[in-house]
Amino acid sequence: MRPEVPDHLLDIESAPPGFLEHVLDLAARMRENPANWSRAQEGRLLVNLFYEPSTRTRVSFEIAALRLGMRVVNIAASDSSVKKGETLLDTFRTLAAMAPDVVVVRHPEDGALAPLAAAAAPGLHVVNAGDGSRSHPTQALLDALTLRTRCPGFPALKVLVAGDLRHSRVTRSGVALLKRLGVSEIRLCAPPGLEAGPRVSEGVRYFEDLDSALEGVDVVMMLRIQHERLAGMAIPDSETYHRRWGLTRERLGRAAPDCLVMHPGPMNRGVEIASDVADGPQSVILEQVANGVFTRMAVIQALLD
Amino acid sequence: MRPEVPDHLLDIESAPPGFLEHVLDLAARMRENPANWSRAQEGRLLVNLFYEPSTRTRVSFEIAALRLGMRVVNIAASDSSVKKGETLLDTFRTLAAMAPDVVVVRHPEDGALAPLAAAAAPGLHVVNAGDGSRSHPTQALLDALTLRTRCPGFPALKVLVAGDLRHSRVTRSGVALLKRLGVSEIRLCAPPGLEAGPRVSEGVRYFEDLDSALEGVDVVMMLRIQHERLAGMAIPDSETYHRRWGLTRERLGRAAPDCLVMHPGPMNRGVEIASDVADGPQSVILEQVANGVFTRMAVIQALLD
Amino acid sequence: MRPEVPDHLLDIESAPPGFLEHVLDLAARMRENPANWSRAQEGRLLVNLFYEPSTRTRVSFEIAALRLGMRVVNIAASDSSVKKGETLLDTFRTLAAMAPDVVVVRHPEDGALAPLAAAAAPGLHVVNAGDGSRSHPTQALLDALTLRTRCPGFPALKVLVAGDLRHSRVTRSGVALLKRLGVSEIRLCAPPGLEAGPRVSEGVRYFEDLDSALEGVDVVMMLRIQHERLAGMAIPDSETYHRRWGLTRERLGRAAPDCLVMHPGPMNRGVEIASDVADGPQSVILEQVANGVFTRMAVIQALLD
Repeated sequence: MRPEVPDHLLDIESAPPGFLEHVLDLAARMRENPANWSRAQEGRLLVNLFYEPSTRTRVSFEIAALRLGMRVVNIAASDSSVKKGETLLDTFRTLAAMAPDVVVVRHPEDGALAPLAAAAAPGLHVVNAGDGSRSHPTQALLDALTLRTRCPGFPALKVLVAGDLRHSRVTRSGVALLKRLGVSEIRLCAPPGLEAGPRVSEGVRYFEDLDSALEGVDVVMMLRIQHERLAGMAIPDSETYHRRWGLTRERLGRAAPDCLVMHPGPMNRGVEIASDVADGPQSVILEQVANGVFTRMAVIQALLD
Repeated sequence: MRPEVPDHLLDIESAPPGFLEHVLDLAARMRENPANWSRAQEGRLLVNLFYEPSTRTRVSFEIAALRLGMRVVNIAASDSSVKKGETLLDTFRTLAAMAPDVVVVRHPEDGALAPLAAAAAPGLHVVNAGDGSRSHPTQALLDALTLRTRCPGFPALKVLVAGDLRHSRVTRSGVALLKRLGVSEIRLCAPPGLEAGPRVSEGVRYFEDLDSALEGVDVVMMLRIQHERLAGMAIPDSETYHRRWGLTRERLGRAAPDCLVMHPGPMNRGVEIASDVADGPQSVILEQVANGVFTRMAVIQALLD
Repeated sequence: MRPEVPDHLLDIESAPPGFLEHVLDLAARMRENPANWSRAQEGRLLVNLFYEPSTRTRVSFEIAALRLGMRVVNIAASDSSVKKGETLLDTFRTLAAMAPDVVVVRHPEDGALAPLAAAAAPGLHVVNAGDGSRSHPTQALLDALTLRTRCPGFPALKVLVAGDLRHSRVTRSGVALLKRLGVSEIRLCAPPGLEAGPRVSEGVRYFEDLDSALEGVDVVMMLRIQHERLAGMAIPDSETYHRRWGLTRERLGRAAPDCLVMHPGPMNRGVEIASDVADGPQSVILEQVANGVFTRMAVIQALLD
């Protein structure tokens, strides 16, 4: 039975029941045999409208669309209309008048995409590539695909998300999806001042200390810390952060024996994660990236079909 | 009978008789059934060479070319050869040596494209995407397509072009095309100091006051005012500009009952145009954008065929 | 007999015997009938990863890939992961996880590509588009293709490379390839302080004076001088440079009668080369650009097949 298909993918929370599971199933099938899909959306057009730079996410969407046979147009915030005082909604409506099939938007403000989706005519699909510090639904989906693929007991897992929970888009979308998929235990751990908001914290276990948080977990997702934030935390330098909040090989020893190590990238090696952990046998960080392309292919395919 | 087809589209004034009408007819046919043209120029290559940023125009040309099955390469002025002291002509000849079929150029200097067109080998077509404050022929064509589509009595119309006529590329190309297509009455209205040059002003009616200019017109095209120019005009702020030179709903009441409202974008809402007018039932602003893609498809197709 | 095909093209020196000759032969065949190759690599993906801007080289690779039916994704150094502190190797591995077929890299540091090639999984091919002041193998190949095409007696030639040898990537790769192809006599001439390193200088004749260096040569390749370097050389201005080190028509008279004039671009007219020489009948500068596309098509085709 096919699930209800929404017009847009704005966040995890508002997606209709069964749709995200459908996307994950489709992504897994696409990964089996990507060549089968090389003309699935031939002749259709995807626009990447990025108000914040993000090589990784932009390129992942671009490659996903190309692998479905689509054409892609990239617009960077440094482009001009933005500078000429045009509103986001006018820029979007102008683009929409050129009849693309999908517009992928990244924007620094929370909730910036809702008015765009509301203004979109039927046949135009808006996909959130990250807004404010709020949502990043395709990142949550690619993480879930990685978990489903790698953990035989899924969703019977203990998953820890640790690091700068407050400023990461990964936190809210990721935790929402883990809850929805029925993951057994979700743990959060953040340095003081970088905790997640109340909405994320419901139904999860909070730890103040990374060592205790890691105890017995099956998966740890480390989040990046931006250098600029260290000062605000009264942490003198990144070595100090690493000693207290970084995932080292020794610390990882507290987790379950085959505990997966995840990171949404880009990584600060030697800060939130030690290099030998990032490159170690438990790391699935590059698999996350590979799954990102299949996940985005599946999102596009599911919305357009 | 097919009109003479030029090698390049540099401006409205130099286009051979019948060619622009042919482009407008072709654009209208493309709009009827765009899918018919999806492989019309397959395998051919268009280069966007933009020395000024312009999301709207660059993306419109890019999508037009993609919809004809072409491949597109984008070059922004921020790219390097420009910075390395290479002349425009050398950059163009270098590109031309790579054998594209169409080079679309936007450049801040009036008349910058003439030497490029002169240097182009047969088979390479140069299209003006805006030079200096002089020409923007595809904008004029898309406006004309919108008028022809929307106004049953075309060309028996009273058309007003109002705002910063001096710095707008739309003025000269637009007025030249309206004259050429035999529009009955062309009115111009600009704040003091922002009037059009003498060449534009021949054969048109000039108004010093927006209220009188609007009296009984069938179409009003509002042009954007850049914030920087207000100071030079001794206008304290954009509210003052709006009160004196902005198109409000009240002011629009002076025009003919179904007077069309046009704007080339990007709009400054609340400055040269009120939001309720921009979004109102008489506005065809987004239709202009949609027609822009078909017009550019038609220009490319007409030059290449 | 087919030569050994390497996985990557990092520099001229490390390419296996016969491979570069194979690339040159293939490029010449592609130039005969480019349309034959328009689907040769259909569905495959090339990524341009440029840590330094270069319109000319990026566009040449992009057009080469498009002419083979490939899809192209461009990443500029101004993009974000780079700014977010990610290492070059992590950026590359992230990209590689998205499964492109070719990654073309330009980077300001000498030897930056070796660790990338070492990290690449089978099926992923790295091509050097210029690293540090060290290598630019596709530039060397396109120059060699131009020589082979234009000089009947090739490789029995006297070739002079003159100008800023020290900072030019063209020097080392170009001279290495000329030696390898058995060019009879290679001459170098540079202003004091801008000489090539010892590795380049083996087996070549060095001249301190441009007039003597030009005596009887069949080919002269002029290299660009950056304005910033003049100060360091105690040369007051570019006119002075031109008088002493510029290729003028008079000076060219010392060379063999049909001596070819080459320049890798972008040119500083009136500095290292006089305009009438750059545009004169002996100049093959634009032919070099045209050959650049065929050479890059051949490199991609040879690595992928």
